[in-house]
Amino acid sequence: MSEAEAVRVIGLWASPFVIRVLIALKLKGVKYELVEEVVGKKSELLLRSNPVHKKIPVLLHHGKPISESLIIVQYIDEVWSSDAPAFLHADPYTRAVQRFWAQYVDDKIAPAFLVLRGLTNGDKDEAAAQVSTALEHLEEAFVKCSQGKHYFGGDRIGFLDLVFGSHLGWFRAVEKISGIKLLEEEKYPEITAWADRFCTHHAVKDVMPETDKLVEFSTNSALKAKPTTN
Amino acid sequence: MSEAEAVRVIGLWASPFVIRVLIALKLKGVKYELVEEVVGKKSELLLRSNPVHKKIPVLLHHGKPISESLIIVQYIDEVWSSDAPAFLHADPYTRAVQRFWAQYVDDKIAPAFLVLRGLTNGDKDEAAAQVSTALEHLEEAFVKCSQGKHYFGGDRIGFLDLVFGSHLGWFRAVEKISGIKLLEEEKYPEITAWADRFCTHHAVKDVMPETDKLVEFSTNSALKAKPTTN
Repeated sequence: MSEAEAVRVIGLWASPFVIRVLIALKLKGVKYELVEEVVGKKSELLLRSNPVHKKIPVLLHHGKPISESLIIVQYIDEVWSSDAPAFLHADPYTRAVQRFWAQYVDDKIAPAFLVLRGLTNGDKDEAAAQVSTALEHLEEAFVKCSQGKHYFGGDRIGFLDLVFGSHLGWFRAVEKISGIKLLEEEKYPEITAWADRFCTHHAVKDVMPETDKLVEFSTNSALKAKPTTN
Repeated sequence: MSEAEAVRVIGLWASPFVIRVLIALKLKGVKYELVEEVVGKKSELLLRSNPVHKKIPVLLHHGKPISESLIIVQYIDEVWSSDAPAFLHADPYTRAVQRFWAQYVDDKIAPAFLVLRGLTNGDKDEAAAQVSTALEHLEEAFVKCSQGKHYFGGDRIGFLDLVFGSHLGWFRAVEKISGIKLLEEEKYPEITAWADRFCTHHAVKDVMPETDKLVEFSTNSALKAKPTTN
């Protein structure tokens, strides 16, 4: 494969925003190379590829960079449209609903996790309550979207599955770090069952990080973010 | 037209997020009714239609609500796909670029304007600098996207034109309120010329609010947000 044809992802194994891109590529059967960033540094390649936000993930395809994970996933869906069923439903209203909840997940869950990991300031109980509210909404959304099937996308992993599912590794890690149970089976039976199905899916299981590795990663990040005065 | 077929927008004339939806409907030739919210109150219809965010705009179509302006504009593009040329380009990479800058505009310009209007706390010089940086990026993006044509979308108004263009009324108003010149013709000649073309377009001119009306609206909002202690 030539340089131009190569598909590369500038990212980090622990980032949910990177994980969703990798799963999307696997679902489409696209071979890729993960170019790992070093935490706390930004590579020349990253700065050149995403000069505006300087953030991972960046997808490099035909030598051109695409940034922002939700945009990348849609790009993958559109470019490799004939290689696997579409992530976004054919019906415009269903697409709008999927996009709505995907944006909601990233707006509510990701910032709450940073508070619960001790990486940004904020009240941990409030952050946990925000996650609970999100899970209540998503439990209800699952019933409506899946219509008795296995995924938000119906019979197969769709756009919202990718976006929400990419945070699942961090659910277990954040529970361990904060000592607060978030994904309770009794409260959210549909989401819990869906989470198990998602994490054991053949396109997911190899890229979804283990809980203990994420806990260790988070502890190291917290130490770097808050140096002790001793 | 039956109730089910009616297209209604729950919104407010002054909101850029509403304005982009109205322009999108006009471009597709779709008749709509604007159901105006009263500032500071939230109608029963709004609370019922967008119970999660309780925010305008909401598009009601076939009796079903669609929320979040960027999602609504894509919905309009997909539903009325044969009524007018697509807002989003056919090429996936160009679509990704349009989506990237659209998200950037809403992330950078809208919050900076709230600071410059005195509605949220923050340093006004920093907010003005943030708008300048955004305009520099967008001036450069215009040259790349338009390829010598009139709009970011090429020959006609596209997705990024709608998103960025919907903020143009507030540019003039915010300049008047803050006393800081933002859209300087000498610095941003391409964007200034584009802004004139956009605001005088037949689908735009009737919904783009006048500067003085926006200034008055903003003054009233600031008074409500910060009651004096006298």
